[in-house]
Amino acid sequence: MAARTLRRSTSPITLVLAGLLCIGFLIFIFSSPTASLPSPPRLLLKSKDAASNALSPPSLPFRRAKNPDGKTFSPPPVVHYHMNNVTTSPDPIASRESVLILTPMARFYQEYWDNLLVLSYPHELISLGFIISKGREGNAATSALQEQIARTQANTKKRFASITILRQDTDMPLQTQNEADRHALTHQKARRAAMSRARNSLLFTTIGPTTSWVLWLDADVIETPPSLIQDLASHDKPIIVPNCFQRYYNKDKEAMDVRPYDFNSWVDSPTAQGLAEKMGPDEILLEGYAEMATYRSLMAYMTDPNGDPRAIVSLDGVGGTALLVKAEIHRDGAMFPPFPFYHLIETEGFAKMAKRLGWQSWGLPNYFVRPTLGCALRQIAAQSERSLIVEQVYHYNE
Amino acid sequence: MAARTLRRSTSPITLVLAGLLCIGFLIFIFSSPTASLPSPPRLLLKSKDAASNALSPPSLPFRRAKNPDGKTFSPPPVVHYHMNNVTTSPDPIASRESVLILTPMARFYQEYWDNLLVLSYPHELISLGFIISKGREGNAATSALQEQIARTQANTKKRFASITILRQDTDMPLQTQNEADRHALTHQKARRAAMSRARNSLLFTTIGPTTSWVLWLDADVIETPPSLIQDLASHDKPIIVPNCFQRYYNKDKEAMDVRPYDFNSWVDSPTAQGLAEKMGPDEILLEGYAEMATYRSLMAYMTDPNGDPRAIVSLDGVGGTALLVKAEIHRDGAMFPPFPFYHLIETEGFAKMAKRLGWQSWGLPNYFVRPTLGCALRQIAAQSERSLIVEQVYHYNE
Repeated sequence: MAARTLRRSTSPITLVLAGLLCIGFLIFIFSSPTASLPSPPRLLLKSKDAASNALSPPSLPFRRAKNPDGKTFSPPPVVHYHMNNVTTSPDPIASRESVLILTPMARFYQEYWDNLLVLSYPHELISLGFIISKGREGNAATSALQEQIARTQANTKKRFASITILRQDTDMPLQTQNEADRHALTHQKARRAAMSRARNSLLFTTIGPTTSWVLWLDADVIETPPSLIQDLASHDKPIIVPNCFQRYYNKDKEAMDVRPYDFNSWVDSPTAQGLAEKMGPDEILLEGYAEMATYRSLMAYMTDPNGDPRAIVSLDGVGGTALLVKAEIHRDGAMFPPFPFYHLIETEGFAKMAKRLGWQSWGLPNYFVRPTLGCALRQIAAQSERSLIVEQVYHYNE
Repeated sequence: MAARTLRRSTSPITLVLAGLLCIGFLIFIFSSPTASLPSPPRLLLKSKDAASNALSPPSLPFRRAKNPDGKTFSPPPVVHYHMNNVTTSPDPIASRESVLILTPMARFYQEYWDNLLVLSYPHELISLGFIISKGREGNAATSALQEQIARTQANTKKRFASITILRQDTDMPLQTQNEADRHALTHQKARRAAMSRARNSLLFTTIGPTTSWVLWLDADVIETPPSLIQDLASHDKPIIVPNCFQRYYNKDKEAMDVRPYDFNSWVDSPTAQGLAEKMGPDEILLEGYAEMATYRSLMAYMTDPNGDPRAIVSLDGVGGTALLVKAEIHRDGAMFPPFPFYHLIETEGFAKMAKRLGWQSWGLPNYFVRPTLGCALRQIAAQSERSLIVEQVYHYNE
């Protein structure tokens, strides 16, 4: 591993990146030279005054501290987790519950980061995890992200408990994220399968024993209520999604307006089930395409401008733009199937898999998060092929 | 490629230098009052002389070090993982690859632990993870395990990189593990679904960014070749299982003998596929029951006493008694389905899910691990209801 350090040190970029890395290190466990089971890790995890790492690691790193005889070392830590004490309650702040925010990232939007910073959930209980693909765009996103991380983590009031960045060199098409590519029906399956693998890698790698909640948040979400986490958690549901509407300039109205953005949160329909029944085992249902009208009830079209933001509906499919999941649902095994699972894939397949595990998904039609207009501009390029079916589904599902 | 050369040719001088750097770094961070971002965490993670934690945590815990003003703290860590550098090679020792051994445990067998200790894979590259259910039996197992851990980890030569114990209070029937209960057909589905959830919880919670391999090893496995990990890894397969034979006293032969134990490693059969086709969506196929003859080719019956231990067969289902998996297969999303997945569940469902993700399972018919005779004694109690089908399957599948 020393060799790995050497290897990376050969690259000037690596040196620069390494320069941005920061650490504080716990020492409680290092002081015990005895062979008995050290208790401090436990204290560390249980005491609110100790290392408040929301994402407690599966194992604590240890230093080979020398004993008085100068030869032997203190034993590495044994951490004993009582996972039943990792609660998920409607009042997560009162219970000091850890939240892991996971974001697959292709591009870095400053507004995304700015919005994270104003989340009112205690930042010392929030851990962040990112997975960023290799390549030029991924490198640029990583640099921009790291710059903001360095700035934020130096700020004692806004810093987060921990941050993990994964880079992965798969052929995931995250970097070719213009809307026409992203939404073309023929590309959807491959794209969403790759996205599923990225989500799974990020999830498996970062979820720890003390994680209570996982908030999936797309990198282009630039506007949420500051109390997003508390608001979603207050419903005390295993899986819950807000509605996702995009602000844009409506030429007809000559004013700013909003429009639905995420069509993956839906209630199933007999039509969709009928389509699925006739499909081959490897075919998948996708939402929002004229050539595959599902007549599902889309949450995007259940919204009421004057409705109660706490209004809630049960869902059969969920989108991943913003998605709060109790960590135990993931621990039970619910992941994002990269393969057709009941003819569903990625976040929609996740909702189905969770349901097979006994967990219901829920949605808030009148509670909103907003993706960036940067995406919207690209989305417009794909409007011609998408507007028809959106209208059509709207018509049948309102 | 140059990097590999470097890594493999790591000289003692390099290690010493890295060690010195690390010690200097530790002194630096523990005395540093600044809020600036220090670079050394990378060293810390990579150097053998620093925290040699094979299972690098998704985020390092941090100390709230007081600054001179007595109020502010040093920033928490940012860790940058290049997951492509986490290799899985046929020679994992040379590449210093981390292995995570995961064991769901109902009872503690001293022979299990003794066998772990003689594994010749470098212990500093091995992390252990256990999940133990609540209740009296689980408590006893935990105490016994902890006692051994304390003893082992105090021994600088045999200690493992890190050990995680999870306790979980689900209704998983791990604690009622007598064979009659364990294998009764009607109980199998619930038992294996609960076991799947336990495996998933353990997996999601302990797998870290630097884990290369995951070795699933049942708590009753008391005898393996010391080179088990190297031997299995040398085949360079995504998923590989040894054969599982139990030593017992054969009354007819009046001598010690062996008999097959794990019937979950198999090649699929048209009969089994036909059964599956006629099943309802929630029904599952199980192996080893007279009332459900699948005529699959069981690896248990492919063994040849004089055969090459490196002989290898491709499999459609795998057992979990001992099971080596490249970590990336799990990260891709492959878990142990607690629900019927193509009418398969737990480890057999895992093999199917991995296949859907593009990963093939393999088995070694002539390479053995041995479960304890303690189990065998209990298994005998269930022989009357099991021996018939075992004979039958043997007949058709040899």
